Amino acid sequence: MGATPPRSPLAPARFPDLPAIGGVTLAAAAAGVRYAGRDDVMLARLDSGSTLAGVFTRSATRAAPVLDCEAKIGAESDAGAAILVNSGNANAFTGRNGADAVAALCETTGHALGLPPGRVFTSSTGVIGELLPYDRITAKLGELSGALGPGNWERAARAIMTTDTFPKGAGAVVDIGGRRIGIAGIAKGSGMIAPDMATMLVYIFTDAKLSRPALQTLVAELSDCTFNCITVDGDTSTSDTLLMGATGASGVDVEGSEAFREALHGVMLDLAHQVVRDGEGATKFVEVAVTGAASDADARTHAMAIANSPLVKTAIAGEDPNWGRVVMAVGKSGAAADRDRLTIRFGEVLVAENGWVAPGYREEDAAAHMKRQEVRIGVDLGLGEGAATVWTCDLTHGYIDINADYRS
Amino acid sequence: MGATPPRSPLAPARFPDLPAIGGVTLAAAAAGVRYAGRDDVMLARLDSGSTLAGVFTRSATRAAPVLDCEAKIGAESDAGAAILVNSGNANAFTGRNGADAVAALCETTGHALGLPPGRVFTSSTGVIGELLPYDRITAKLGELSGALGPGNWERAARAIMTTDTFPKGAGAVVDIGGRRIGIAGIAKGSGMIAPDMATMLVYIFTDAKLSRPALQTLVAELSDCTFNCITVDGDTSTSDTLLMGATGASGVDVEGSEAFREALHGVMLDLAHQVVRDGEGATKFVEVAVTGAASDADARTHAMAIANSPLVKTAIAGEDPNWGRVVMAVGKSGAAADRDRLTIRFGEVLVAENGWVAPGYREEDAAAHMKRQEVRIGVDLGLGEGAATVWTCDLTHGYIDINADYRS
Repeated sequence: MGATPPRSPLAPARFPDLPAIGGVTLAAAAAGVRYAGRDDVMLARLDSGSTLAGVFTRSATRAAPVLDCEAKIGAESDAGAAILVNSGNANAFTGRNGADAVAALCETTGHALGLPPGRVFTSSTGVIGELLPYDRITAKLGELSGALGPGNWERAARAIMTTDTFPKGAGAVVDIGGRRIGIAGIAKGSGMIAPDMATMLVYIFTDAKLSRPALQTLVAELSDCTFNCITVDGDTSTSDTLLMGATGASGVDVEGSEAFREALHGVMLDLAHQVVRDGEGATKFVEVAVTGAASDADARTHAMAIANSPLVKTAIAGEDPNWGRVVMAVGKSGAAADRDRLTIRFGEVLVAENGWVAPGYREEDAAAHMKRQEVRIGVDLGLGEGAATVWTCDLTHGYIDINADYRS
Repeated sequence: MGATPPRSPLAPARFPDLPAIGGVTLAAAAAGVRYAGRDDVMLARLDSGSTLAGVFTRSATRAAPVLDCEAKIGAESDAGAAILVNSGNANAFTGRNGADAVAALCETTGHALGLPPGRVFTSSTGVIGELLPYDRITAKLGELSGALGPGNWERAARAIMTTDTFPKGAGAVVDIGGRRIGIAGIAKGSGMIAPDMATMLVYIFTDAKLSRPALQTLVAELSDCTFNCITVDGDTSTSDTLLMGATGASGVDVEGSEAFREALHGVMLDLAHQVVRDGEGATKFVEVAVTGAASDADARTHAMAIANSPLVKTAIAGEDPNWGRVVMAVGKSGAAADRDRLTIRFGEVLVAENGWVAPGYREEDAAAHMKRQEVRIGVDLGLGEGAATVWTCDLTHGYIDINADYRS
């Protein structure tokens, strides 16, 4: 994968302190799948009584582990569960061999932990089209199961990194009726995409109690306004996976709890933002907020058209308040727009309204906003109540450096 | 617009010899709209009896000249016509002032040439959001109308350039029933996009005789498989315009002529390819040919997903036969695909089939193809008879250099 890129300038200062989650233990190990001298396998174990939910890539060419997770995620079971993740090889586009490798991993993991293979969920991330050397991973299952412990968040987050420049974690502690509920999550991803299609993977755990259908609904809804609202370059991976486990160890049922929903939303948004902050070559964190659209769906279409426009993203890299490119992106998105009702803001600076530059607009004001590390583009369509916010990063020489290198 | 970029390495050796078209005269002049010391206005005059057809951007924020052309293009008239084009200012997102500027240009041009203003078609390309100083153009109409002549193709093509690195022309002479028909066209565009949203403009002329509806149908159909099948980065401009005039000066009616259709298709494809060859930062000319899709529309969706993928385009820049990224792009496109029926070729090299790398595939063979200046990606879906071919270029540091510079 070439030389390790420097830590993103948008990275948080340090990995956060995450709460231990009753009923969840983790371990990491160096299996040598592709990388030498670093952890590349992560194992998480969830106690019996846990419920699981998942959200997966909708790619038509999704990888074998994703297909296996999708087939299993809807089952009800009291048997406990395990999540096994390797980096270095995505086990994607590997034909029948891909499914065989997943089956072998689930069988061996189940045997080591006393679980049925149907309760083992796997993810793989890294190079695609190469057979996964799964025997290197199964050889480490004894070591992994022996090392399972409650506090290994950062080590687990590091083991699943590919071209990520920092490990990603987020957590929350919520008080519900005087009882403490923990949420902790880790993620990897240098945007939706990375060299050789390494991908976005997210694992979140809580000791709250939630039925499987309630957990699935909650996770799907919150993914829609967090992970599904970020983009680095619009390229969708074959392996994107979010798995969430609720162990119920706290004894607190949170179905319908607004406080829990808010806390989980915060954790998911934090992880999603960290993925953008590690976007390939990123030097700016960008929020695109669209309001006044004919519908929320239209607002999202406009926001994504702006966030994925190479012209907008290069302008941000150049710290250029080039609002004409925002007009262009709105115009091409295909969603409803009326040129003469558009309002555009960079940060708090009103740039354009009523189909032309705003009276009193001074470019130096907008240019000052563009020099910030966090840039906000606000667009109001003036048509209705539809709104959406998405997050992205700029498009820089760093992106070309990372992706135009020949794999080696 | 900063320093002039060097001539594209994909540029043709020289501007072609184009045939004179009976009933068409052209002129160019330096009006100083934005650039100093170069022609920036082009005037074409078509004799009475000419028919006109046009295809325009579908952007919801399209520019004032585009809206004016759309309103006029469907009218029948024997009065002759004029096309007036300036570079340096797009007269886009200029509010009511934009329409006023267009009206003034049409009025003055009509007066200079003895035409009704409704028969004057204008285009503007360059910076957006700034008022068009149209008085600089109207001041040159006397000079322009006096200089009209039949052979000024290259000078006209140069006058409409913005960040283009070479002038674009293509022509054909067809023999129909022993009589000679000429076709000549010019275009500008450094892809669908360019700094400050300079745009793609195309003007084609013939001395063949065609009714207005027949010409419109032909131009719309052929645009669909030429200009609408190219992409540099998926950003659609607010000003894209194609105008075609048929003067009938040859006296040969070509309605239904397959030979004329083929010749016109060739001219349009040539111009479209030249736009890709001048794509910002381009070092490779890329053909993406998709076959075996469920429908032609699905094939086009897959082809565009591949051609617009930053991951695919950076891999091509790096001369990396990274077929996993092609799998990714097919998977994300939203059109029907079956991972295990996909076949992928780079040039003649069979890379992947049946959901995995092809037996006997040697990466050095594909790598050799990627080193060529013209790269071909072939994808067969194995699902049906749908097919589409699109053309694009690679994504390089040159693109970032051109677009991340602050406007100045």
